[in-house]
Amino acid sequence: METFRPMRESANAQAFARISGAEPVVVDVQCAIDVVPGMSPNIILTSGAPMTWERYYGGQRAAVLGAAQYEGLAVDASDAEDKIRTGEIIIAGCHDYGCVGSLAGIYTASMPVFVVDNPVSGNRSFCNLFEGKSPFRLNYGVYNQQVKVNLIHLQNDIAPALGRVIRESGGVALSPIIKRALHMGDELHSRNTAATLLFNQAVFPALMQEARKAEASASVLYEYLSGGDYFFLRLSMAASKAASDSAHGIEGSSMVTAMAFNCHDFSIRVSGMGDEWFSAQLPPVAAKLFP
Amino acid sequence: METFRPMRESANAQAFARISGAEPVVVDVQCAIDVVPGMSPNIILTSGAPMTWERYYGGQRAAVLGAAQYEGLAVDASDAEDKIRTGEIIIAGCHDYGCVGSLAGIYTASMPVFVVDNPVSGNRSFCNLFEGKSPFRLNYGVYNQQVKVNLIHLQNDIAPALGRVIRESGGVALSPIIKRALHMGDELHSRNTAATLLFNQAVFPALMQEARKAEASASVLYEYLSGGDYFFLRLSMAASKAASDSAHGIEGSSMVTAMAFNCHDFSIRVSGMGDEWFSAQLPPVAAKLFP
Repeated sequence: METFRPMRESANAQAFARISGAEPVVVDVQCAIDVVPGMSPNIILTSGAPMTWERYYGGQRAAVLGAAQYEGLAVDASDAEDKIRTGEIIIAGCHDYGCVGSLAGIYTASMPVFVVDNPVSGNRSFCNLFEGKSPFRLNYGVYNQQVKVNLIHLQNDIAPALGRVIRESGGVALSPIIKRALHMGDELHSRNTAATLLFNQAVFPALMQEARKAEASASVLYEYLSGGDYFFLRLSMAASKAASDSAHGIEGSSMVTAMAFNCHDFSIRVSGMGDEWFSAQLPPVAAKLFP
Repeated sequence: METFRPMRESANAQAFARISGAEPVVVDVQCAIDVVPGMSPNIILTSGAPMTWERYYGGQRAAVLGAAQYEGLAVDASDAEDKIRTGEIIIAGCHDYGCVGSLAGIYTASMPVFVVDNPVSGNRSFCNLFEGKSPFRLNYGVYNQQVKVNLIHLQNDIAPALGRVIRESGGVALSPIIKRALHMGDELHSRNTAATLLFNQAVFPALMQEARKAEASASVLYEYLSGGDYFFLRLSMAASKAASDSAHGIEGSSMVTAMAFNCHDFSIRVSGMGDEWFSAQLPPVAAKLFP
């Protein structure tokens, strides 16, 4: 073991330099199928390490079945179950596709994703869009008419305008926003107020152009950008994914480059250990959350 | 003295309730002459308590002489001095006109001011506009071609568009912005980043309308709003003035309702003591600020 130490130390130093030197920039919003390498029309990605279908349960299982219907891969939940069992619909872990998932962490081919480049290391990451303030969301494991309508709204109304505005801005560097926001009370998971405001400020000139060209879409987009302080979370997730992935695959490095959970397991991936996931079952939760 | 205590306590409680209950709202941007009660074309207001002309010196004196030329009241500094001495140009303290001044604190008739209403107590305050990031500013006691051009830019380009955007927004309530900003690292004098972002967010919908109607002015205004994090300072000043003034004039109250300085004195005004100022000379400063 002693003999590995010098190699591990230098490998970890390199991994650390990659993470701390990352400069993630959001460059676009596109449908997953058009930008996520390896994505195909019959794939549904979830948060967490890849897992056999039988082990999915609860909200995440419901979200997968909903996603199959949303994507038009199945007519109902039972049809979706059948097609997953026969392999007609493939379930995979989003991290293996450069994506990072919030809760259920569902991605289907047509869903819009942020495209975040890290030019320092030449890698790219993705995150899907915040579903808004409704308590009914696919990432909460709910799929109903309201969730469907909102996902269509994100895909047809928000994503194209947001993509135009980000491209028109020449991309938006995320590290400067993240650094400032952390000094303004954000922790960038449950508090994203400052980062969302700073992002909005960065894209506002492009949003004014959008307003001149397409009044309605600019107003709808602005409502989305300012409607909840959670907007930036998906960008901080994609930025963190871009930084972490850039440190992955360094021979001899023991750095953990991904921590992820699904409905069943908590899992890690280690820089020098390839694409293998190391998982442990989640402990049972006994809590009275809503008395 | 004992006999006054109950009256003073209740008067101070009332003054405190007025200040803490104030809900200042910026409702417009207009030229001082059109909105500041008692303003007239030959008046120049300065920060601090009113003072005889002979006692003005240094930057504030230079700023007054510059303001006279800017306003077209004098052709040069010497002409301005003459007209001030003969009373053709009147110098007064801005606080006595509902205004609050930054440093030199100069107001002339044509200069634009924020109009801030406090509907809870029915009073109104004013503050002029941030001159931008240039080290040459009238409020720093500098008047030259660059300062003049910038003041004209504020008056002709920024103020009309900013007024339209604020009116179109139906006014902007300042207390909610101030409360949030104080939790985001602002102290609202030298740090106004969060408050400026929150204000910008509040007026963006109106700014998008402005962009559709008047592309150039919207871009120029946005550059001003986002160009320096100091923008909101003048609004926090006007909001504080509106809150403090609402507590002024309560019989028996010993609350200090204004603290102000000019080049010569530091002065206070007390709620129950009318419009009298109580002044002390500033101590001499011996500092090596720019070694």
